[in-house]
Amino acid sequence: MFRRQHFTKISHRCFSSESRINSFIKSKLMSAEDIAEKLPEKLTLGASGFTPAGYPKVIPGAYAQRIKNSKNPEDFSINLYTGASTGDELDGVLARTGRLKLKIPYQSHPDLRKFINQGKLDFIDMHLSHVSRYMREGIFPPINVAIVEACDVTSDGRIYLTNSSGMSSTYLALAKDIYVELNEAHPLEMKGLHDIYLPELHTGRPINIDYVDDRIGTPYIRVNPERIKGIILTNKFDSSPGFKKPDDASFKIANHILDFILNEVEHGRIPKKLLPFQSGVGNVANAVLACIAKDNRFKSIEMYTEVIQDSIFDLIDSDKLRFASTTALTFSLEGQKRFFNQLTELKSKFILRPMEISNNPEVIRRIGLITMNTALEADIYGNVNSTHVLGSAMMNGIGGSGDFTRNAYVSMFMTPSIAKGGKISSFVPMVSHCDHNEHSVQIMVSEQGLADLRAKTPKQRAELIIEKCVHPMYKDQLRDYYKQAQRVSFGLHTPHDLQQALSWHVRLQQTGSMHPDYQQTKTKDTEQAAKQDAQTASTKK
Amino acid sequence: MFRRQHFTKISHRCFSSESRINSFIKSKLMSAEDIAEKLPEKLTLGASGFTPAGYPKVIPGAYAQRIKNSKNPEDFSINLYTGASTGDELDGVLARTGRLKLKIPYQSHPDLRKFINQGKLDFIDMHLSHVSRYMREGIFPPINVAIVEACDVTSDGRIYLTNSSGMSSTYLALAKDIYVELNEAHPLEMKGLHDIYLPELHTGRPINIDYVDDRIGTPYIRVNPERIKGIILTNKFDSSPGFKKPDDASFKIANHILDFILNEVEHGRIPKKLLPFQSGVGNVANAVLACIAKDNRFKSIEMYTEVIQDSIFDLIDSDKLRFASTTALTFSLEGQKRFFNQLTELKSKFILRPMEISNNPEVIRRIGLITMNTALEADIYGNVNSTHVLGSAMMNGIGGSGDFTRNAYVSMFMTPSIAKGGKISSFVPMVSHCDHNEHSVQIMVSEQGLADLRAKTPKQRAELIIEKCVHPMYKDQLRDYYKQAQRVSFGLHTPHDLQQALSWHVRLQQTGSMHPDYQQTKTKDTEQAAKQDAQTASTKK
Repeated sequence: MFRRQHFTKISHRCFSSESRINSFIKSKLMSAEDIAEKLPEKLTLGASGFTPAGYPKVIPGAYAQRIKNSKNPEDFSINLYTGASTGDELDGVLARTGRLKLKIPYQSHPDLRKFINQGKLDFIDMHLSHVSRYMREGIFPPINVAIVEACDVTSDGRIYLTNSSGMSSTYLALAKDIYVELNEAHPLEMKGLHDIYLPELHTGRPINIDYVDDRIGTPYIRVNPERIKGIILTNKFDSSPGFKKPDDASFKIANHILDFILNEVEHGRIPKKLLPFQSGVGNVANAVLACIAKDNRFKSIEMYTEVIQDSIFDLIDSDKLRFASTTALTFSLEGQKRFFNQLTELKSKFILRPMEISNNPEVIRRIGLITMNTALEADIYGNVNSTHVLGSAMMNGIGGSGDFTRNAYVSMFMTPSIAKGGKISSFVPMVSHCDHNEHSVQIMVSEQGLADLRAKTPKQRAELIIEKCVHPMYKDQLRDYYKQAQRVSFGLHTPHDLQQALSWHVRLQQTGSMHPDYQQTKTKDTEQAAKQDAQTASTKK
Repeated sequence: MFRRQHFTKISHRCFSSESRINSFIKSKLMSAEDIAEKLPEKLTLGASGFTPAGYPKVIPGAYAQRIKNSKNPEDFSINLYTGASTGDELDGVLARTGRLKLKIPYQSHPDLRKFINQGKLDFIDMHLSHVSRYMREGIFPPINVAIVEACDVTSDGRIYLTNSSGMSSTYLALAKDIYVELNEAHPLEMKGLHDIYLPELHTGRPINIDYVDDRIGTPYIRVNPERIKGIILTNKFDSSPGFKKPDDASFKIANHILDFILNEVEHGRIPKKLLPFQSGVGNVANAVLACIAKDNRFKSIEMYTEVIQDSIFDLIDSDKLRFASTTALTFSLEGQKRFFNQLTELKSKFILRPMEISNNPEVIRRIGLITMNTALEADIYGNVNSTHVLGSAMMNGIGGSGDFTRNAYVSMFMTPSIAKGGKISSFVPMVSHCDHNEHSVQIMVSEQGLADLRAKTPKQRAELIIEKCVHPMYKDQLRDYYKQAQRVSFGLHTPHDLQQALSWHVRLQQTGSMHPDYQQTKTKDTEQAAKQDAQTASTKK
């Protein structure tokens, strides 16, 4: 308790008006090119950033240029550790050097994806809550350099981050040399938004977050100032893609979800004041918040999540956001400007936490969250594939979806029922890769309807998913599979026909569609088809 | 803090020498047959017991007899909710009435398994940590009767359980009518072993267990004594199967595990005093404890687990057991006698907790466990099937393995590399059912060796598993699959040949073996073969 009050006080003190370029910063100022020259050729870089938010935007480009100018670019090799995916100025720029050898722990950049699936780049796709510990235990190649974006640095080594917290505290703790991009696009009033707390290993000490707005840490990351080897000044907004209004299918999914939640409240399984929400990135998640904002039946919302997008403004405008805990503010350009302009009033409604806290299963389980994540595909028994197209091609990665789903109070997965104009059904006999299994997936939603899978046998689940979620053009086909599976397996607990279980995927590989009536002339070779499928699934997500 | 001290005091007070048959018990005494007559024909029964430990042993048989004697047995239907599987006197007896319609949340009884896979009995296979909440939220058909085994009952409604805690506290809270089997085989000194705490829903309140021996509850379950409708006296030991000495393969697996743990200690990833262990039921888990007992490099062990078996006596005899938290003491007859005889000295080393606490992800994550669970099969990328033979036939269920694995500090899965004399390889191209995915499975062990899958790409994992874990008779075959998968998927992130991914299982269905050289004449029809496979996998587990 003392701890919490103590740090709350510090946080309030941080509304400071000191000049940004203090004498310490001045003494460390360098050019991006000079820093690029000082970075090692074998670079293991821990960078700030989680999604395209709060990542270094200039030094990576200068380093890429150094590689390009080098007579021996093959002397360079880069391991890149970030919070999750970041912006093109970091993920993309370094990938395109061709010298990126290892990326951890998430990616969603087309260039990275290409190299990963070509086998040219090692990617470790992991639960985000595991990353910090693995780093600190030395399971990964050790970090030699950390580069973080900050809005302020003090002479005693306090670094104030910008739009994301991500893995920065761990990387700054571990790196030999630290470089800072001091980004003047961020108001100094950002100071105080972050709550930095790095749990000790092996202590069994609880993480004392019982409510989404509990503060247990400091608003800065403290490092030995001597380890800060250089600072550059920048003035750049995060290059988040513009915010796309959710489509019709997303709104249908969102409405199914809201009806379900209200029904749970009515039955006393969710309290009237609701439970905090976690929502993945994307259209549907945004549609849910937009619908809540408009719906009179919802009064006040809390979020305990990893990414906040522009859709939060709908809640703010309708005065329904009580509090949002996140590790990243991933706003469009307009969203960033609005957030900075309204920072004084909005600050009391947000906390930015390190990824190991935003995604911490202990806290997630204790608080009790309604989680909403996107499925790439799901099967009739409720198993979910979040990561792999056709079982082999990495799409984005599991990210935090496992941390949240497995420990949720109510775990939901959502997906439009078809993709690629109907050539792909999101509901298949058996998933080609399983990231979330039947035991952990409680609610499945498509624009067709919502299936409550809790307390159901596999057969009840299959019937419910086919009935509620599957697109009409695939319903009979999936019913036929299910009947055939019951026939060949003589009933059993979870009927499957193992000779046909993956046949929809094979048909997609061979004909370009999961639907048998699809009459595409196969003009492309299989490789091209697979690439196209991967691309489509990407835009779908 | 106040709470914890308060209850510790109560617990110490409980070493009482009062006569077991107090006037309250006397006033409630009935025969089992009388109770059986009073039970409803539509019975939804919440029973004590977790594994064959602490379950009611007499009333279920009397109720089964009533059904047998009935002119209209089809008027009866039973939903049976337990902690996990229990003994034949409960699970078996009620299954054989043919009137059991629903079983939750785990089973390992051959009669139950048969009915489940014949589609005659609904079985909901779920994470054990989810059960209490689902029950209390009314997601399952509501309980009308609770029957628990106790070693004492007081006139003010305190019920002291016996060899397991399981789901008893939840079922007693929810049932309309309560019946007690007062089992005089258990010494009254059992009182004080249990620590009963039922977390409130929707509060975000932490479960204050930071160390395996923390007490946060009461040594009894308190109910309104008026709800206790009848008590019978019994004097029966749990009918646990005799303790089988681990086989050679189990000792080999155990030794790989101990070497791994000591290497982790050496590298500072596990502290010198170690971390508490969770271990599943079975040979390998027992072999690990036996090896620790003999190995001078291990000094003192803590357990935070769901089942304790006779192997704990190896640790006790070598003075290496510091403390064990569990929800069940599943001893052989000899083990039960020994435990009761030594209860005074052993009591300070054990806590029996409700299943929602023993398996609580918040606590598991906080404490940081080394978890060891058994795989039915695993694939080259580290996905684990714990539940389904050939993707369809339910073996036992996921039990607590998901609660522990997903939140472990180090999660291990172990399996002998082959089963059925080599007709089955435990390592396959793709699992036919996925209960624990590549993101959550960190260590894979067979008698052949141990694969550390942490921080590895899928391709690195495949090579490691084939190299370290696979039986020599299947190594080339699995290498061939992996090469073929790389060829047809053009590399990609997680190479699979979807036309062949399940071909090993199909071959087993068709020929009786996964090995192509196996020359069995196919005399049996497919149904028989599937049955035989299920049976074999059962004994394997």
